[in-house]
Amino acid sequence: MESEFNKVLGGIQPVDQSLAPRGQAHLDDLTKPQGSLGRLEDLALKLYLVQEGNAPVADPMRVYTIAGDHGVNDEGVSLFPQEVSRQMVLNFLNGGAGINALAGTVGAELFVVDAGCCGGPFDEHPSLIQEKIAPGTANLAQGPAMTREQTIKALMLGISLADRAHADGVKVLGTGDMGISNTTPSTAMYCAYLGLDPEAMTGPGTGLDKKGVASKAQVVRKGLTANAAAIAAGDPVDILAALGGFEIAALAGLVLGGAKNRQLVCVDGFISTAAYLAAWKICPTVMDYCIISHASAEPGHKKAVETMGLTPYLDLGFRLGEGTGAACAMFLVRAATDMFNKMATFSDAGVAEAE
Amino acid sequence: MESEFNKVLGGIQPVDQSLAPRGQAHLDDLTKPQGSLGRLEDLALKLYLVQEGNAPVADPMRVYTIAGDHGVNDEGVSLFPQEVSRQMVLNFLNGGAGINALAGTVGAELFVVDAGCCGGPFDEHPSLIQEKIAPGTANLAQGPAMTREQTIKALMLGISLADRAHADGVKVLGTGDMGISNTTPSTAMYCAYLGLDPEAMTGPGTGLDKKGVASKAQVVRKGLTANAAAIAAGDPVDILAALGGFEIAALAGLVLGGAKNRQLVCVDGFISTAAYLAAWKICPTVMDYCIISHASAEPGHKKAVETMGLTPYLDLGFRLGEGTGAACAMFLVRAATDMFNKMATFSDAGVAEAE
Repeated sequence: MESEFNKVLGGIQPVDQSLAPRGQAHLDDLTKPQGSLGRLEDLALKLYLVQEGNAPVADPMRVYTIAGDHGVNDEGVSLFPQEVSRQMVLNFLNGGAGINALAGTVGAELFVVDAGCCGGPFDEHPSLIQEKIAPGTANLAQGPAMTREQTIKALMLGISLADRAHADGVKVLGTGDMGISNTTPSTAMYCAYLGLDPEAMTGPGTGLDKKGVASKAQVVRKGLTANAAAIAAGDPVDILAALGGFEIAALAGLVLGGAKNRQLVCVDGFISTAAYLAAWKICPTVMDYCIISHASAEPGHKKAVETMGLTPYLDLGFRLGEGTGAACAMFLVRAATDMFNKMATFSDAGVAEAE
Repeated sequence: MESEFNKVLGGIQPVDQSLAPRGQAHLDDLTKPQGSLGRLEDLALKLYLVQEGNAPVADPMRVYTIAGDHGVNDEGVSLFPQEVSRQMVLNFLNGGAGINALAGTVGAELFVVDAGCCGGPFDEHPSLIQEKIAPGTANLAQGPAMTREQTIKALMLGISLADRAHADGVKVLGTGDMGISNTTPSTAMYCAYLGLDPEAMTGPGTGLDKKGVASKAQVVRKGLTANAAAIAAGDPVDILAALGGFEIAALAGLVLGGAKNRQLVCVDGFISTAAYLAAWKICPTVMDYCIISHASAEPGHKKAVETMGLTPYLDLGFRLGEGTGAACAMFLVRAATDMFNKMATFSDAGVAEAE
């Protein structure tokens, strides 16, 4: 399976930057002062490059909300009991969660993926993809959360989700996560990949108090120590195996697959950005195909994103995950394509340009 | 007409804050960690109060893009020739402007209003409302831009637009402006109403260079001096008359009318916020019914909004006006209502709550 994975990586091509001046010239010719639609113009140009210099297309859009459980939950790092991951999968399938509401608002299709929830299989459902790698990871505070083989399997799962969307014509992907305790592995990943400090990066997740956050930072530090050899060796897949989770590795695969397929990937918040960071360390070219949808209210997110040199599009104080921030950013993607495709040019509209 | 205007002001009632706990309890019972949808929850609660404790409704939505010309254009404060206001009205009617694209994306109806463009009437068009008060204002650098009578007329025009929308069932209004040189009157209004400094508040508008900005700040200062008596007297309508414009006064009226009708008003950027500020000075209760859609890239906007104690929902570097930022915020309004109305509660979904 690892050779298959490497083949995917070899298929990820950078966008052709030589197309940028043509796209920019079109944006500058639209009836508005140059640059006056700000980041919507950057987004339109990004999509123009992702889609190889064609008039950018936003639809269809799809969100994958990928679920998994975490052995590190044993360390008491979350306010919610572990069975909530499973309960929330059922809530997604019944249409009652935040991501159902917001994917509905923006008109993105939603699929739910079991990459590694505790317990057995779920009942079948047309919106559910069951590819459970194992019922929860091992406890990262005591050693690697996943084996390398499991990690590659989860990465390939994410790639297959991007491929399935590509086969259905999907142009824009949104990443979503569900997994009780998954801010802990994500925090550990930021620390390991970016050299950041556990105390500075650990936040309240779903609502820990100050004492809970301090104790969670200790768990993160324990995880970094228990996996110090893998971190020092620096292989990004091994670091993902050591500190990540099944849904996180699958989301990293979704990023890699989206990049291979020339799909724009709207990366959600704290957990999804950790997955994106893993994908980026595995193959830096993915940055050509990804946007950071929003700044999470989880305090470490801004620091991580800043360290990565990126700027989120939205800052709405979200800290829910599931893909909710990505769904909101997808509206901006559609707005950017409408701007690019539907506005008149100065010459067509008979409007005088700036002196 | 002034007595009619005062009657409208008397009809603006504050929202009933005693309904807030019930709305908040519903938000807290939805299947997500409490507060984890951040500002979308604030927005839902705001709309819940605006709509008197009913399940909030976002649609139909309507943007009014109101146009007018400015005598202060004679001072060389814009890069674009004055006839562009008129050309842009035609561009709006032909569907080719930024606001056409973005109102289309969000599914808001768009009406264009001539409140005071230079030149004669436009050809009739189903999306055009022609209520020209005069063909451009007087030069505010030399005295009042408008008479008090013209100003009241423009305010009543805006109120009539809100009423017309109300009669059509519109729940959410977006404010939009078009008027070459209209960052100059807006800047002067911020300085007069908020006691801010012209040099600190003056920005490039559609793209002035440093020298152009400095010269524009001088024009603003000249306007404040020429109208010092009205500013010192402190009547907010007279200050609006002295420094505003026909489209700005009509937008202030739209805010007042929306508040009277219990419609949510999504205030756009630099010009619309100046209009909102005028409405606020006339009747502070309007704040219950308004949101600042986005932070404009025009540098003074953030300072003004901060001074008003408000926080924009979006920060996308827009500096186009027309209602483009409001259109993007309208997506968030719809998302907030979908969250409020479509998410399951913890008990309904069988999801365990936080410990």
